[in-house]
Amino acid sequence: MADKGRYLARLKRIEGQARGIHRMVDEDVYCIDILTQISALTSALEGVALALLDDHLRHCVVGAATRGGPEAEEKLREASAAIARLVKS
Amino acid sequence: MADKGRYLARLKRIEGQARGIHRMVDEDVYCIDILTQISALTSALEGVALALLDDHLRHCVVGAATRGGPEAEEKLREASAAIARLVKS
Amino acid sequence: MADKGRYLARLKRIEGQARGIHRMVDEDVYCIDILTQISALTSALEGVALALLDDHLRHCVVGAATRGGPEAEEKLREASAAIARLVKS
Amino acid sequence: MADKGRYLARLKRIEGQARGIHRMVDEDVYCIDILTQISALTSALEGVALALLDDHLRHCVVGAATRGGPEAEEKLREASAAIARLVKS
Repeated sequence: MADKGRYLARLKRIEGQARGIHRMVDEDVYCIDILTQISALTSALEGVALALLDDHLRHCVVGAATRGGPEAEEKLREASAAIARLVKS
Repeated sequence: MADKGRYLARLKRIEGQARGIHRMVDEDVYCIDILTQISALTSALEGVALALLDDHLRHCVVGAATRGGPEAEEKLREASAAIARLVKS
Repeated sequence: MADKGRYLARLKRIEGQARGIHRMVDEDVYCIDILTQISALTSALEGVALALLDDHLRHCVVGAATRGGPEAEEKLREASAAIARLVKS
Repeated sequence: MADKGRYLARLKRIEGQARGIHRMVDEDVYCIDILTQISALTSALEGVALALLDDHLRHCVVGAATRGGPEAEEKLREASAAIARLVKS
């Protein structure tokens, strides 16, 4: 993983955002404001996922592709399946 | 809010999922498995957002619509903007 | 429907975009450029869908809500299901 | 491109779906039914995009990666940007 510290910091913020949304519901904050925060959290998650995917393509997939053989095929299959899940979630 | 307790329980689970993803990165778990968990968390968030939106339409938007006047227009504008953010996030 | 002419013009453009992508594939245009056009077409479709949904909320859902009764419940259920399909597609 | 004929057939169907939605609007079909067709069209487009992306990873990106050098870096950058556009559209 390229910059583990940065991922950990981003995920710590995401955890805080999730806690914040829990508190908003608990304090009966107006629904639209809660929905705004959920969209912001979803976008933050997407950002982390896209960065992880880029890392994975650069290191795991390209590494396996350079070595060739069945491992390369498996890495490509996995990467495409992960991209499909992201696009559809 | 229709069933606040259920929302709070779902958001507590989402917070736990976020913490779990942080731990996966910290323990250098394989990227694809982390991406799978991020997609699951994104879907869980979507579920909460769609339920909140349904509640909002039923109570706030319909309530304002029945009373009519500028408040109804504002509620409709807000709801459509929230839907757009959800669709695009 | 608020402005039918505008919807028809937007959908005619979308049809043209789809035909354009077909031609790009036929002429072996570089994949990334085709993917860029597919994302543009998807965004154009989302725009039409969000406008239709806003119209639907303002006219069909609010109309039924003002009249009350089972029809209002059905309109709300339908609207939320349509929003869910949009968010998940 | 792996199976150009299949892509062309899928895109021809997508063009037909777009034409069908235009006709539904023209004939004042109920909004919810039009929205259902738009979601179906969006999913069909996503399917084509994901297949193209898989092809692109397997042929263009892996090919460049095996040859190494700046071309590989450019292909990876392009692929990640295309994935981001798909996820966010």
